[in-house]
Amino acid sequence: MFVHEFQLRVRYGETDQMGYCYYGNYPAFYEQARSDAFRKECCSYAELERQGYMMPVLSMHIDYKKPAHYDDLITIRVTVKKRPSVKMEFFYETFNEQGELLNTGSTTLCFVNKATGRPCQVPPPFQPIIEKYFGNE
Amino acid sequence: MFVHEFQLRVRYGETDQMGYCYYGNYPAFYEQARSDAFRKECCSYAELERQGYMMPVLSMHIDYKKPAHYDDLITIRVTVKKRPSVKMEFFYETFNEQGELLNTGSTTLCFVNKATGRPCQVPPPFQPIIEKYFGNE
Amino acid sequence: MFVHEFQLRVRYGETDQMGYCYYGNYPAFYEQARSDAFRKECCSYAELERQGYMMPVLSMHIDYKKPAHYDDLITIRVTVKKRPSVKMEFFYETFNEQGELLNTGSTTLCFVNKATGRPCQVPPPFQPIIEKYFGNE
Amino acid sequence: MFVHEFQLRVRYGETDQMGYCYYGNYPAFYEQARSDAFRKECCSYAELERQGYMMPVLSMHIDYKKPAHYDDLITIRVTVKKRPSVKMEFFYETFNEQGELLNTGSTTLCFVNKATGRPCQVPPPFQPIIEKYFGNE
Repeated sequence: MFVHEFQLRVRYGETDQMGYCYYGNYPAFYEQARSDAFRKECCSYAELERQGYMMPVLSMHIDYKKPAHYDDLITIRVTVKKRPSVKMEFFYETFNEQGELLNTGSTTLCFVNKATGRPCQVPPPFQPIIEKYFGNE
Repeated sequence: MFVHEFQLRVRYGETDQMGYCYYGNYPAFYEQARSDAFRKECCSYAELERQGYMMPVLSMHIDYKKPAHYDDLITIRVTVKKRPSVKMEFFYETFNEQGELLNTGSTTLCFVNKATGRPCQVPPPFQPIIEKYFGNE
Repeated sequence: MFVHEFQLRVRYGETDQMGYCYYGNYPAFYEQARSDAFRKECCSYAELERQGYMMPVLSMHIDYKKPAHYDDLITIRVTVKKRPSVKMEFFYETFNEQGELLNTGSTTLCFVNKATGRPCQVPPPFQPIIEKYFGNE
Repeated sequence: MFVHEFQLRVRYGETDQMGYCYYGNYPAFYEQARSDAFRKECCSYAELERQGYMMPVLSMHIDYKKPAHYDDLITIRVTVKKRPSVKMEFFYETFNEQGELLNTGSTTLCFVNKATGRPCQVPPPFQPIIEKYFGNE
């Protein structure tokens, strides 16, 4: 299992007239959290793209429990529970500074070889992190 | 059952460096599609808020099948299948101009009385549309 | 002189907790308005990119006079006053449904040949529109 | 004179199909940079709003020199050169990790009393920072 925490502050433009952080911002927050995990753990997603791979999102689910507000410092905990293969599934929990759980979500991404445009197994630059957290197969 | 179709064009700023419409834009597109349905059918969401109600999103799910690209004119078909009560569930299908299905999604919203901050039944301004599509109970 | 009008509705996610359309959304609105002008008049910006050109923004200025609100149908009038060469300058005026002027702005873009990465004169697909509005030189 | 530096990373969704950070994102970046300055120096903008004031943007100007890219860690240097009164003018310089200047900009905001909806002088919670950087008048 792989767990990573990422923090960000809600921008003014990310609020809506309800006074909440707009529900449609969380997919971008989740993406920034998993990008941060990649960068810190092995190879950045930017590097992965330079090496000829990309990771489109196949599906996303979010359950909203409480809203975040402007200027809140929120923590997104990213968890990968299952060894990735062609697909990689990320779970997210978002907390405010009081430790309250604001929302939970998941995204399933797949590895794609840019040259062929086709799904592929975990690319070489990602294998060290897979072995570190999920062992040799 | 209630069905409504809404069209929008993908903005340049909504693309990402993959050349796709970024996955995180669809929640805003879905919201614009359901707002358009409200406006055309009975009372706009803006009017609903003025009358003291709001509709936060409780959950969202999206399955991405094909990407949209810059300047694509996409159609979002919004469907409400079940008579709403405290909660209202919307289904979405997004098509490109060739009629290809790009993604499907759903959002569950609930009605909240702004004065009490608590969930409530379908507010009066929405009842005509409910009766029109789901009959008298 | 070239003038084009484009309409859009302010999305919920484009409001902020002041209840206004967030000031940072107008650059995207302006871009959509000039894209719409290109598409209707000669060749879409998408087609221009496919033919090997791009138009990065060099500068932008906006004067905000009145706010737009959620669900407002706003009109953006795009004007090109001077014959474009390597640079092309667009002026914008945004109006609400009451005809009130909400903001005025301008952006200067330049034509870039993607193959060389260097600025270039008005590309061939754009010449018909230039001649139509600014005459032969 | 007041100077503050703020860092952020460009999100994937903030890129466009040119592979650049979309030009329309900088107003939100600038806002986050000045919010950060407020929070660190005296009173957060969130607190200012709670005390009955707001700061709408009156005008904005940006000169784009070089693009930022996905995952770039950029630094925004915010400078206030003149003692604020009803209006407050911020200057911005954005740098990448190589220290290259990506863009420069400015925004003029004004203080508004929410109760009256009218412009007002620097509100009490902001006076300590004004005196610290611009002296007693």
